[in-house]
Amino acid sequence: MTHLRAVVLGAAAGGGLPQWNCGCQNCNAARDGSIPAASQSSVAFSANGSDWAILNASPDIRYQIAAAPPLHPTGPRDSPIRSVVLTNGDIDHVVGLLTLREKQAFTLFTTAAIAEVLDDNPIFRALDPAFVRREIVALGKPFEIAAGLTAEMFVVPGKVPLYMEGETVDTELEGEQTVGVHLTAGGRAAYYLPGCAKVTDALAERMRGAPLVFFDGTVWENEEMIRLGVGAKTGARMGHMSMAGAGGSMAAFAPLDVARKIFVHMNNTNPVLDPSSPERAEVEAAGWEVAFDGMEVTA
Amino acid sequence: MTHLRAVVLGAAAGGGLPQWNCGCQNCNAARDGSIPAASQSSVAFSANGSDWAILNASPDIRYQIAAAPPLHPTGPRDSPIRSVVLTNGDIDHVVGLLTLREKQAFTLFTTAAIAEVLDDNPIFRALDPAFVRREIVALGKPFEIAAGLTAEMFVVPGKVPLYMEGETVDTELEGEQTVGVHLTAGGRAAYYLPGCAKVTDALAERMRGAPLVFFDGTVWENEEMIRLGVGAKTGARMGHMSMAGAGGSMAAFAPLDVARKIFVHMNNTNPVLDPSSPERAEVEAAGWEVAFDGMEVTA
Repeated sequence: MTHLRAVVLGAAAGGGLPQWNCGCQNCNAARDGSIPAASQSSVAFSANGSDWAILNASPDIRYQIAAAPPLHPTGPRDSPIRSVVLTNGDIDHVVGLLTLREKQAFTLFTTAAIAEVLDDNPIFRALDPAFVRREIVALGKPFEIAAGLTAEMFVVPGKVPLYMEGETVDTELEGEQTVGVHLTAGGRAAYYLPGCAKVTDALAERMRGAPLVFFDGTVWENEEMIRLGVGAKTGARMGHMSMAGAGGSMAAFAPLDVARKIFVHMNNTNPVLDPSSPERAEVEAAGWEVAFDGMEVTA
Repeated sequence: MTHLRAVVLGAAAGGGLPQWNCGCQNCNAARDGSIPAASQSSVAFSANGSDWAILNASPDIRYQIAAAPPLHPTGPRDSPIRSVVLTNGDIDHVVGLLTLREKQAFTLFTTAAIAEVLDDNPIFRALDPAFVRREIVALGKPFEIAAGLTAEMFVVPGKVPLYMEGETVDTELEGEQTVGVHLTAGGRAAYYLPGCAKVTDALAERMRGAPLVFFDGTVWENEEMIRLGVGAKTGARMGHMSMAGAGGSMAAFAPLDVARKIFVHMNNTNPVLDPSSPERAEVEAAGWEVAFDGMEVTA
């Protein structure tokens, strides 16, 4: 029987928990083991448990695969990973491609805009086209990403990757730079949106009544990094809406009747990463779960 | 008092141990814990224990820093890492730069040829020049890489990175694409050569009588990857000389009177990674040590 199976490979945003140069409360707690560490943003999906698609290839992918037995090779050089799907061109979502370079066949699905980012960087030629098939997908058209598993991309407000930013930046751009993914396997379905600047009316209508949504949990509140003294940017400036507050994701999803809502892509400053925090209690009271590395979800 | 202190952050070559798609004997043994896992090629050096230089930034650097307490941040956003030095432009030596992107000041030392590889890839703009100072260094000219710690680069036979290879490849190129590093702190000294295609007469003379050498241990024998059915390339084709045999590194170093010789950058197929292997016994009998993740060496 077909299920939709997800394994959260990495629950944290870019930088991970702990981040190399961060001495914030969460990073120190992760270093001393008092809260769980979390690697960078990636979720694996499968319809049959033996063919897998990786949504976003994080810099931590070698460790993430090593920690996930279903993704281990089954022969001398082999992998059950059939494809990688990118939802934007951010470093925390594309650098792992450089680990998947060892003459192993898989398909890389991206929008044209994200493919352009890769093509601008000859280092990605390390993915030998004799092995890695590149497929440019259009928004709104379903495509198969692993046996029995279909994906469809749709527009989500976001921005271009940091390293491609110009003088001015549209942080709620609606194009092919940042997308969400609708996954279906048989009659099962899930949404994956690790980056989202705003729940527009159209996006709210799409989410309404969904059985399972993985959603952008980067920051608890917009000014969090500034308040903690570890950065000068708001969540909005980074293209991410906050969890809390009138304009936050908890408020936006409250009326949408989504059966299971899971936050992913938490920045290391987000207090919900501490299981004993009042903010964690608050998101759970609002019907949300907070993803963790190795979390398994079956729809 | 000044010492020269080294911490091996990663003892393996590109791909690491286990490699994501490799089911060779070593990779399987590392997955089930019967031999130690090893991350990708990097060594940290310090003269005072509080200011560090990283020689090569591996894709595993976030985990490597997390595992090395002297490299942990000491404030909200801070790092004792003062510089990164690159010995070539290979993926296993440069991708970690993309992890060191969080608005943290350090100096990046490279040859002009290696800098060109980085400049060809806009993704490395993630290293904001307002924080990361790029210094192009000439061969044969000493420069300070951390307090009291000096480095000098010299030519080593090698090749351009795989993703920059053209139709024909010179695998014993002697230019600025692959270099060795001579490190000095007070009266202490060490050599670091994670990639070397051949011990030329000039290189042998340079190594003669050295107190400490970290040397390219990629393959045990030239045909190893072919014999194990995991690749089509010889060690020589990859720009690495073998350990064993008449043309190997053990033979080349035998007459050179080096006090302490340590193999680094072992490919996952190299049998010396298994502490119980006859090949490990053979290199140890020849006076070599095999590096491991977390190995500390003081000169």
